[in-house]
Order: sequence, then structure tokens, then C-alpha cells
Amino acid sequence: MFNSAVDNVHDVKTLAELAQHVDGRVEGNAELRISSVATLEDARKGAITFVASSRYCQFLPNTLASAVILGETEVELCPVSAIVVDNPYLAYAKIASLLYPCLHPGGFIHSTAVIAASANISDSAFIAQNVVIGEQVEIAAGVAIGPGSVISDHCNIGKNTSLLANVTLCTGVTLGERVLVHPGAVIGADGFGIANDNGTWIKIPQLGSVRIGNDVEVGANTTIDRGALNDTIIEEGVKLDNLIQIAHNVEIGAHTVVAASVGIAGSTKIGRHCAFGGMVGIAGHIEIVDNVQVTGMSMVTKSIAKAGVYSSGIPLQGNLEWRKTAVLLKQLNHMQQRIKQLEKQAKGT
Amino acid sequence: MFNSAVDNVHDVKTLAELAQHVDGRVEGNAELRISSVATLEDARKGAITFVASSRYCQFLPNTLASAVILGETEVELCPVSAIVVDNPYLAYAKIASLLYPCLHPGGFIHSTAVIAASANISDSAFIAQNVVIGEQVEIAAGVAIGPGSVISDHCNIGKNTSLLANVTLCTGVTLGERVLVHPGAVIGADGFGIANDNGTWIKIPQLGSVRIGNDVEVGANTTIDRGALNDTIIEEGVKLDNLIQIAHNVEIGAHTVVAASVGIAGSTKIGRHCAFGGMVGIAGHIEIVDNVQVTGMSMVTKSIAKAGVYSSGIPLQGNLEWRKTAVLLKQLNHMQQRIKQLEKQAKGT
Amino acid sequence: MFNSAVDNVHDVKTLAELAQHVDGRVEGNAELRISSVATLEDARKGAITFVASSRYCQFLPNTLASAVILGETEVELCPVSAIVVDNPYLAYAKIASLLYPCLHPGGFIHSTAVIAASANISDSAFIAQNVVIGEQVEIAAGVAIGPGSVISDHCNIGKNTSLLANVTLCTGVTLGERVLVHPGAVIGADGFGIANDNGTWIKIPQLGSVRIGNDVEVGANTTIDRGALNDTIIEEGVKLDNLIQIAHNVEIGAHTVVAASVGIAGSTKIGRHCAFGGMVGIAGHIEIVDNVQVTGMSMVTKSIAKAGVYSSGIPLQGNLEWRKTAVLLKQLNHMQQRIKQLEKQAKGT
Repeated sequence: MFNSAVDNVHDVKTLAELAQHVDGRVEGNAELRISSVATLEDARKGAITFVASSRYCQFLPNTLASAVILGETEVELCPVSAIVVDNPYLAYAKIASLLYPCLHPGGFIHSTAVIAASANISDSAFIAQNVVIGEQVEIAAGVAIGPGSVISDHCNIGKNTSLLANVTLCTGVTLGERVLVHPGAVIGADGFGIANDNGTWIKIPQLGSVRIGNDVEVGANTTIDRGALNDTIIEEGVKLDNLIQIAHNVEIGAHTVVAASVGIAGSTKIGRHCAFGGMVGIAGHIEIVDNVQVTGMSMVTKSIAKAGVYSSGIPLQGNLEWRKTAVLLKQLNHMQQRIKQLEKQAKGT
Repeated sequence: MFNSAVDNVHDVKTLAELAQHVDGRVEGNAELRISSVATLEDARKGAITFVASSRYCQFLPNTLASAVILGETEVELCPVSAIVVDNPYLAYAKIASLLYPCLHPGGFIHSTAVIAASANISDSAFIAQNVVIGEQVEIAAGVAIGPGSVISDHCNIGKNTSLLANVTLCTGVTLGERVLVHPGAVIGADGFGIANDNGTWIKIPQLGSVRIGNDVEVGANTTIDRGALNDTIIEEGVKLDNLIQIAHNVEIGAHTVVAASVGIAGSTKIGRHCAFGGMVGIAGHIEIVDNVQVTGMSMVTKSIAKAGVYSSGIPLQGNLEWRKTAVLLKQLNHMQQRIKQLEKQAKGT
Repeated sequence: MFNSAVDNVHDVKTLAELAQHVDGRVEGNAELRISSVATLEDARKGAITFVASSRYCQFLPNTLASAVILGETEVELCPVSAIVVDNPYLAYAKIASLLYPCLHPGGFIHSTAVIAASANISDSAFIAQNVVIGEQVEIAAGVAIGPGSVISDHCNIGKNTSLLANVTLCTGVTLGERVLVHPGAVIGADGFGIANDNGTWIKIPQLGSVRIGNDVEVGANTTIDRGALNDTIIEEGVKLDNLIQIAHNVEIGAHTVVAASVGIAGSTKIGRHCAFGGMVGIAGHIEIVDNVQVTGMSMVTKSIAKAGVYSSGIPLQGNLEWRKTAVLLKQLNHMQQRIKQLEKQAKGT
């Protein structure tokens, strides 16, 4: 079996090699051998750790790590060797990926996989147990398909893309290179297209598909629907968390990130480099420009034409106070009229 | 493999045949042969398109489609042949379904399917790879079960119903005819029934099941729990989008539509012909009458006794403004008292 | 196949035996044989029912049940034999579990299961069709793994734990004893860890795992992510409903219950004996003490330091009224300034 981060096979590097990988400067022993990563509190000999935020500085003086990734300002607090960089969190991400490469034993098709005769599968692909692959599917070099996944007819999966367990791709879905799809995700199910016929609902065939760019990540149990006529499009570098709903014909621009449980309704176009907090709801048929951030649980009902940070939602109160708030919310109109009346009277005085 | 809309095998019809199918009038060449549907902008020779809303009229004069489905008012703008109807969107739905029939090669059981000896499966059913079918399951004519689906003991599946990939039906679930269940949906998992025993929680066996009527659609990764004692009931013609939670003993009336990521808590009864926007939350043990519409992200905490459109939720603001709003929301009570005080003073004057 | 409550094989007990099981007192015929449970309205001969709330008392005088579980105050209204207890709902839970035990035919591995050579599986475990079990997995006595489930390398599953159909455990997940995981749940997928590198996002390997205590229940299609470095932790007795998102490094204290469609962001620590209503959103990196209750759809953005009941959210209005409310919500700041101005004037008078 394979996983996105194999936790018991990892590389050993010197501190100098790691520093070079992240354009950092070594303070201390450049020949130290580093074989793992850990938190400031848990790191022991052989491990490198990091200080990504000043609130963790308190743990730095007592760390038992072999080395620490940190910024210029933390160097003097550090009791051990260090890699000094501008952005310790980013450097940590790169070093952890180097030490814990995501590997699978390529060139393997499990005997229980059921593969259509017309499918075209690279010799270096890894196909796990009970995978089902349909007609005329194209699977490129280095692809890994996890157990129980279903790849329907006419799908096209780019180089080094990984689907973990029990993933479903419906007909004609295209995934780019280095895409990572987590368990239970469903890509290409029918969009929710219905037309009313005197009170009953007639299904509208969903004839588009889904196109996903390079380096996209799709979270567990997330659903991305196929387009009604044209395709639903997720551009390169988009990162989607778990349990997200992306409706038909949505387009998400490159390098946008979406946290868990967000819902995006049909035909909405979202720009590049946006960020959406968890459980945000986004209405259909709207446009959101590049570089928009929306905080968690916000309700987005209209297009957003200007980059910036946006929010909505009512903060938590004690239940008894909230009950009063809830009543008053319904009386806002009345409250405003009373103010108007007072203003009239005051003017009259 | 099969899919809900097979995109490479479809029928060819004349414009006259299509018009007759939707009780429409042909303008232009009734003998035109139509083999596909497409948008106004993308349609080419052989394709029919449609104008469902006046905002798309701008694309009509330049369409390269062979024909257009439209209303009386758009006829004169149309540069090609047309089918004229009262409701172009509905006519499009019917024509698309006619041109792209949802077919599967019936009468087929894949060799990897694992089927209990006591299951009763129609000769015309289609059972895909790695399907598991339990004891005393009844599968009617024309049913299709997609790869990796699990049909537990005592389930009953009506004629021409389709389950796509990796669907799970738990024990004793009943599906009507022409039901369509998308990948990853789970029907009949235990309801969330627990009783508190001095701080720990005791599970209450969930002994009811789920009954789903004819022509229901269930979206990807949607969950419909079994009842505690009686059944959870979804009546005919209900359309459920993706990632919806329907708790135990909920009842949903015929022809109601529910958009994605809605949650409906236990024992709530919802009427017929209702419509719920995405991410609406509905409390348990309430009743909602027929013909109620609730807009997206609304919070429904009480029964709704009167048909109509209902809403809640705070619209989006810039983050800095919203921070002020959020503070003031907690001060509504204080604000009201200040108004009261001013009114008292004004009266005193 | 097996299910969490087998509905056609159940035990028969006398009323005396049932009463003893719940420390209750028999009123009437202690030798009555009880073989099923049902609602007050539906119960017939052989069935026991219960009165858990005064609103159901109206059905008591006409019940056709053989016996009723009830409190002292309902005894005189009861036309048939009874078990009298302090907490009828809890007693019902215990009696229903006794009559409908959750059984599976232990000591069985289906021929289609694919099991790694290094996996260690108890002789009394039940492994269903198409299950995939990875390297060095430990499966204890009495465990049941439902069809299509994938248990990745290095997982450890405690005694009498049940996974229903199509469950996915990613690498190194640990489940305690008597855990119940419903279909489609994904435990141990990568947390959503990314670092920004000049506008593109770099994945941070997720190297922790998930540890789940005894007697935990995990709902259908719920997702629990693995930790970034340390583990995500769900303590004993926690009950999670469907479609819940639990992000990396969340910790949930013992006996806390979480209703459906809740989202909990990364690194948040939740106390013991808490309760969260459906669709609550909880921000990351906060702490919530023991014995906190949060009502449905609330937005929790800050730590909660004091036990109690908390809420937020706007109640439903007719759509037209809500449109006014929505406008006024954005004018709260202006409204407050008008009050201030009036107060100034009033003072001046």
C-alpha cells in the first residue's frame, strides 16, 4: 500500500544539505546528520524542528532537537545548531518534504485490479487492490491509484498524480500532474441540474466534465460536480480541504485555497490567489476577483469586485444573551424607526 | 462501465421529432438532423442550443448552432431554425434527455461481484465490478449497480434505479423506481441516537430503515440515516444534492428539492414542493408545510406553518466594517435601552 | 454481511429480566415475554415501548404494547404492564441494546479480502468482502471490518471494534475498543497543511496520525485528519455524527458529542462532556473547556473558558423582512452614531 507521506522510510541529510535546499544559512555544525522532523517540545537527537511564530519562542531555549529552522531574530535564543531563513515555516515545509518523500513502488498492478482492455496505463504506474479502471482511460507515468478507487471511462490522469483509497472519478474527468486526491473524494458526479415541469422536477443531463490542473490537492470526501454543458474547472495549484462541495461549472483560479466544508454553488467564477475559511457559503452565478480572502462561515451572496478581506456572521454569546440578541435582530426595523422619531422630535425642540 | 449520461453514444433526431417531444412549434427547417446539445456560444452544426434567460439573448444573433430552443419573444432574433415553446429550459431538459439517454448494458453481472445466494436479481440488471450484495436483497429489472457499491442484507431496489460507484446501502433500505444515487452516498447508516448515563453516552439501536420513493435523486457523499424505530422517508420526486445530512426519522414530502450541504436534524417533517438553498440548517422535531422556500445558509429553528420564502443570515462586509458590526451586534440590547431612555427623556420634555 | 443492529435476529426476555437489567421495578406481569421494541403507537403484542417525554403521554392509554418503560408519574396512566425507572429513555436504550445485540459471525475472512502477509488478525475477527488490509496492521479479537473497507499499513484496531462498509483508515491510525465507524468515514487523511511560497502553495507532509479511544462512534462520511507532527486525538466515549470535519491536531475530550456537519479547524482543543449542535463551526487554535454546549449553526471564533450554553446565528424571517434586516445590519454603526448624537443633544437640552 502507499500513502502520501511514508512515515517509516525517510532520508538522512546533513544540515548543510538541508540549508542549501532552502537557501538558508547554517549556524553551528553543518555536518550534523538530520533524519526526522518534530515539534520544538518533542524533537530529540537527529531531528530538526522550527520556530514559525514568536509564540513558540518560549520552547526554544530548552529544545532537545539537533537543529532548528528559524529567523534572524531567534538565532541568539537557540541552544543548538540552526538554519536561518526569512520564512521558517516555508523552509520547514520544503525540508520535511525532502526528508519524507511521498513514494510508492511504481510499475505494479495488483492482481485484484479490474482494468478495461482499452485503458492505457504507464509501465511506471502503481495500481492497488480492487481498483476499477474503465474504457479508454489514460494513466501517465508515476501515477498511483489507491485501493478501491474507481476510474470511469475516458478519464485522463497526468504524471505523478496520486489518488488515495476509495476515490471515485466519473466519466471523462481530466487530472493534471502531481494532483493529490484524498480518500472518498468524488470528482465528476452529475451537477444538480433540474427543470420544473408543473411541480415535478425533470433531470437535465450533465454533459460537461471536470478539468483539474497541475499540483491541485482535493480533500477527503470532497465533491466536485461535472459541468452541465461546459466543464467545471479547477486551475493549477488550487488546494481544497475536506468535505467541500463544488457545483457544476464553477471555475476556481490558480493557487486559490479553500478550507473544509465550504460550498460553492453553480457557475460561480473565483479568481486566483483567493482564500476561503471553513464553512463559507458562496452563491451561484457570481464572480470573485483575484486576491480575495473570506473568513470562516461567511455568506457570500454577491460578486466581489475588489481584492481584500471580507467577513460576515454573528459572534458567539451566552445563550441567554443571544436569545435577546435574536429577538432584537428581528426588531431592527422598529428600532430604526424609533431613532428616526426621536430625531424628528429633537429637531422640533 | 456505465454513467448517468453516456457522452459518446447518443441518438440523432430531426427537429420535428424534437419539437413533437416537447409540444413545441418548429420555425425553419423541420428536417434538420440534431445530434447534440451545447451552449449558445459553443454550439456548432448538428447541435441544438437554448435561450432560457434574457441575459443570454446577446449571444443569440451570432450562434452557430443548427437550431435553438426559445420562447416566442426571441423568435425574431434567431438567425437559425428554432423550436418555440413556453418554457425553453424545461424543453431543453427533455430534449437533452432524449438525445443523451442514460443507458447501461443490461443483463450483466461482472465476475468480481460478490452476491449472496439468497439475493434475487433481475435478468436485466447490471452489476458492476466489486459490487457486494447481501442476503435476501431484491433487485428489479433494469437496475444498475456501479463498481464498489455495497448493498446490505434485505435491501429492495426498484425498477430502473441506478447506483453509481462506491454507494453504500445499509440493511433493509428500500429504493423506488428510477432512483439515481451518486457516488459515495450512504443510505441507512445508524441515526445519531444516544442516551446519557451519568455523563457517558449509551447507544440506542437504530431499528428503523430508510424508504425512498420513485424518481428520487441522491447526491454524491450525501448521508441519509435509518430511523430509530420507524423509517426515515423520502417521498417520490425529491431531489437531493451532494453532502447533505438527513437525520433519522426525517420525512421529506414529494418533489421537494434540497441544495448541497444542507443539514436536517432528526424527526423533522418537511412538506411537498419545498426548496432549500445550500447549507441551510434545519432543527429537529419541527414541521415545515408545503411550498416553503428557504434561501441559502438560513437557520431554521422553528416550525414553518405558512407557505412562502424565508431567509436569515448576515450579508458579507469588508472585514474591518464587519468587526464593528460584530461588536455592535453584542450591544443591541444596550442600544435598545439607550433608545428607551431617550424616548423617556423626550416624553419628559 | 453484518450491521450495527441486526434486525431479524433478536433475543426474547421476560419483563423481570429486562427490569433487572435497568434496575427498574415491574408493575404487572413479570413473566411477560418481550421480543421487540416499538413506539407507543406502533407497539403490538410482544413489544415493549417507552414514555420518554410528557408530550407522548397522550398515546399511553391506548397503547397495544405488552409493556411500557416509564417514570413513576406515568404509572397510573398505563393500561398494561410496566417497568418503572428514573430515566425511561436511558432504560429504553439499555433494553433495546439487550434485545437487539450487534452481532457478526466471528472468525471469518471472506475469500475476496486482500490481506498483507505481515498483518496480524485475531482468529475471532470478521473480515468482509473486498476488504484491503495493509502491512503490519493489528486487528484484535471480535473486530468486524465491513465490505470495501481499506485499512492502511500500521493501523491498530482494538477489541470488538466495528467498521461498516467502505470505511478508509489511512496509515498508522489507532482505534480503541468497541469503536463503531459508519460507512464512508475517512480517518487519517492528510491535514490541510500548506505554506505559501511567493503565491504558490507548498504541501507540508502530515507526519502525525489519529488516535481514537474506546467506545467512540464515528458517523457516515465524517473525516478526521491526521496530525501534522503530533496526533489528532479523540478520547473515549466521544460520539461523532455524519459529515463532520475534524482537522489536524484537534483534540476532543472524553464523552463529548458532536452533531452532524460540524467543522472543527486545526489544533483546537475541546474539553470533556461538551455538546455541539449541527453545523457549528469552530475556529482553529482555540481551547474550549469541559461541559460547554454550543447550539446548532453557531460560529465559535474564540476560546471558551467557562462551562455553559452558547449560541449565535440569526433566526429565520420572511424573505422581505429579512432583506430589511440585512440592510440594517450593515447600518448598525450609523444607527449607533445617531443614538450618540441624540444623547448629546438630550444632554445639551
